[in-house]
Amino acid sequence: MSLIVQKFGGTSVGTIERIQSVADKVAAFRAQGHDIVVAVSAMSGETNRLIGLANEMEEQPTPRELDVLVSTGEQVTIALLSMALNKRGCEARSYTGSQVRILTDSVHNKARIKSIDDANIRSDLDAGRVVVVAGFQGADENGNITTLGRGGSDTTAVAIAAALGADECQIYTDVDGVYTTDPRVVDSARRLDRITFEEMLEMASLGSKVLQIRAVEFAGKYNVPLRVLHSFQDGPGTLISLEDDKTMETPAISGIAFTRDEAKLSILGVPDIPGVAYRILGPVSDSNVEVDVIVQNIGADKTNDITFTVHRNDLAKAESILSATANELGAREVITDSKIAKVSIVGVGMRSHAGIASKMFKTLADVGINIELITTSEIKISVVINEKFLELAVRSLHSAFDLDEAVVE
Amino acid sequence: MSLIVQKFGGTSVGTIERIQSVADKVAAFRAQGHDIVVAVSAMSGETNRLIGLANEMEEQPTPRELDVLVSTGEQVTIALLSMALNKRGCEARSYTGSQVRILTDSVHNKARIKSIDDANIRSDLDAGRVVVVAGFQGADENGNITTLGRGGSDTTAVAIAAALGADECQIYTDVDGVYTTDPRVVDSARRLDRITFEEMLEMASLGSKVLQIRAVEFAGKYNVPLRVLHSFQDGPGTLISLEDDKTMETPAISGIAFTRDEAKLSILGVPDIPGVAYRILGPVSDSNVEVDVIVQNIGADKTNDITFTVHRNDLAKAESILSATANELGAREVITDSKIAKVSIVGVGMRSHAGIASKMFKTLADVGINIELITTSEIKISVVINEKFLELAVRSLHSAFDLDEAVVE
Repeated sequence: MSLIVQKFGGTSVGTIERIQSVADKVAAFRAQGHDIVVAVSAMSGETNRLIGLANEMEEQPTPRELDVLVSTGEQVTIALLSMALNKRGCEARSYTGSQVRILTDSVHNKARIKSIDDANIRSDLDAGRVVVVAGFQGADENGNITTLGRGGSDTTAVAIAAALGADECQIYTDVDGVYTTDPRVVDSARRLDRITFEEMLEMASLGSKVLQIRAVEFAGKYNVPLRVLHSFQDGPGTLISLEDDKTMETPAISGIAFTRDEAKLSILGVPDIPGVAYRILGPVSDSNVEVDVIVQNIGADKTNDITFTVHRNDLAKAESILSATANELGAREVITDSKIAKVSIVGVGMRSHAGIASKMFKTLADVGINIELITTSEIKISVVINEKFLELAVRSLHSAFDLDEAVVE
Repeated sequence: MSLIVQKFGGTSVGTIERIQSVADKVAAFRAQGHDIVVAVSAMSGETNRLIGLANEMEEQPTPRELDVLVSTGEQVTIALLSMALNKRGCEARSYTGSQVRILTDSVHNKARIKSIDDANIRSDLDAGRVVVVAGFQGADENGNITTLGRGGSDTTAVAIAAALGADECQIYTDVDGVYTTDPRVVDSARRLDRITFEEMLEMASLGSKVLQIRAVEFAGKYNVPLRVLHSFQDGPGTLISLEDDKTMETPAISGIAFTRDEAKLSILGVPDIPGVAYRILGPVSDSNVEVDVIVQNIGADKTNDITFTVHRNDLAKAESILSATANELGAREVITDSKIAKVSIVGVGMRSHAGIASKMFKTLADVGINIELITTSEIKISVVINEKFLELAVRSLHSAFDLDEAVVE
C-alpha cells in the first residue's frame, strides 16, 4: 500500500465524461488500498475563457484580481471530480489551494510555493478519503489567492508529494510516457521505462513537451519519483527518478531532442578587445530576446566571429540590434540564417562512456550532414545543422546510439 | 460622508458591459467621499450553468462539493468588478466569503451566517479602497466553503452592513423601488418613499418579489436601513426602515399585495370532536404541502366546516389526502376551488386607524365582490375572492385607501 499523488491536466478533465473516466481510474487505485491525493487543472478551455473575460474588462487586468478569477477554473474541477468519486462510493473531499493551505509568495500570476501544510490532507487520508486538490494555485500569508502560472498544476502535484513524502507522483497526460525522441520523426522511437531528473530536464527544455520544467526541477530537488502516464490508456509509463546504481549498465544516451524554433546570427570581423562579447550580447538580452547557443572564435586575422541563436520569432529584432552594434564596433558584417535546426543527444551515460561526442559527429558526417555549431554540457551535446537535414540527423543518431525499438523476431 | 453597502444582483452584473456600468456607479459614489462595500451575485445564468454541470455528474451532488462549485460564480464577478474599478482609478480589492471571513454554520447549500469578521474590510476601507465581496457564500469554522442558498446575496449585504454599522444598505434591482401594488395591474400604482420592515415582510411574502424575505428580517433585526434602487436608472428608490414617529401622519395602509397562486379546499360536516383540526391538517403538512389561510366555522348542526388554502400546484395532492381523512372522520363532503385569488392590504397605520377592515369590506361590496375567506394579522388583512374579480378588487382598494398617484394638474 502506497501513498500516491496523481495529477490530471486540463485535457484529461476537459468534459464531464472525461472527469468520470478519471474518477473510475482514481477509484480503482483507491480500491487497491492506496492512499490517493489527486491534483487537477481547470477543464481545458476554461482558463482561456476566464482570461478572455478579464481582457474584455481591462487590457492589463489587476494581477491580484486575475488570480481570484482564474483560480475558479480548478475549483470547478475539484468539486466535479469529488462528486464523481462520491457517486462511486469512493469518499472524496476537495480542497482549494487556500484550503490546503499551499503557502506561496505574493507574486501574483507566477507565485512560487513556500510551504504546504499537510495537516488537512493527512487527516482526510487517515479517514480513508481521497483528497482532491486544485492545482496551479495557493494563497500568500495574508490569504490573498495566488496562481503559479501556466502549467503550475504539475508543480502543485510534485510539491504535495514532497510534503507528504509520497511514494510516487503520477502525472497523467496525453502521451504514454517519455520517448527516446519524437515518434512523429522516428518510427522506431521507444518509450523509456526510466530516465533521470537531469535527463528529463534536458529533454524537456529541448522540446519534448511532456512535463513542466519547474515540476521536474522540484521533483529532483526533493527526490520525488515522478511517473508520466497516459490518462486513458493502461501502461507503466516512464519513471523519472534519481540515477539508480543498482540497475544494469546505463546506456550511453537516453534520448534525442530537437527543435526547429531557432535562428542563427553571426557577427564577423569584430575587433578583439576586452568585453566585446558583452557589448554584442548585452543589448540583445536587454531587449528581452533570449539567447541560446553562443559560440565565439578568434579568426586568423585576430578578429572575433561571434555566433548565437535566438527564437525564430525574435530574429528580426535581434538582427536590427546586432547591425547597430556592428556599426559601433566596426565589425565586418552580420549574417543570419533562419533555416536551422538544433539536435541534442542527452544521457547521464555520457559521464562514464568515452567517445560519445566523436561518435555523434562521425554519425552525422557519414550521412553528409555539416555541423554549423556545437555546444556541450555534462549530459548533453547539441549541434546546429541545416533544417533540411533534421529528420535524417535524428534518425541516424537514434539508430547509432541503439535507441531503436527492438524488432520482435 | 457615509459608509454604504451596495448589493448588485445577477442581472445587474450579467455581462461585461453591465459590470462596467456598475463600476461607473460605484466609482461615482466613492468620488463623493463615501466608504463603499459592494456585495455581488454571480453573473446571471452562471449559477444555473454550474448546477447543470453538477447534475450532469450526479443526480444528487454532494452538498459540500456543490458549494465549492457554485461559489465560483460570485468569485468571477468580484474579480471582474474589482478590475473594472481599478481601471477607473478607484482602488478596489475583492474578497470571497472565506476571505472576509463570513462565518456560517455547516449546513451546505443553505447555511446561515453566524458572524462576520470586519477586520479585513475595515483595513481596506481605511486605506481608501472599495471592498468587493462575494455574496451568497461563507465558510464554516473548519474552512469548508458554504453557500446561503438562492438569493443569499441580499442577506450577505445586510449582514455586512450590520457588522460594519453601515449608514445604509442599498439593494440594486431591476425595479426603481417598492410600489403600493403591482403597476401591471394598477396604472396609478405609486413608488413608496418609505416603508417599514414589517410592512415589507408582509408585502414580500405576499408576492411583491423585490427583496429576499430573509434579508428583510435580518435588516429589521439589526435595524439596518435598506434602500431598494434601480441598477441603471437614477432615483431615490424606497427606503425600508423602522417606523419613524417624527414623520407626518402615517397613511392607513401602505400597499396592496395579491397572489393567484393558491387554491381552496373545504371539508364540510366534520363531527365536532377535540383535535379534529389537527387530524385534518396534520396529514397535509406531513406530506410537505404548505397550508396558508385556515378558517374554521361551527355550523348550526354542531358540525365543523374547515376551509384552507394551499399552493395551486399542491391542490391534487391535498385533495386526495383530505378525501381520505373525510372518509375516516365521516365528514359530509370535500369541495375544492382553484379559481381564487388572495388580496391583502398591508400597513402599520392599521394599528392607529380604526375601521380599516370595514372600509375594505365595504369597498369590495360596493363593486359587487363576494368575500369567501378573511384572515387578519396586526398589520395585514387578507381576503380570498373569486379570481375573476382580482384586478377590480385591487384597483378599487388602491383608490379607496388613497394610494393612487396624485395627478399633476
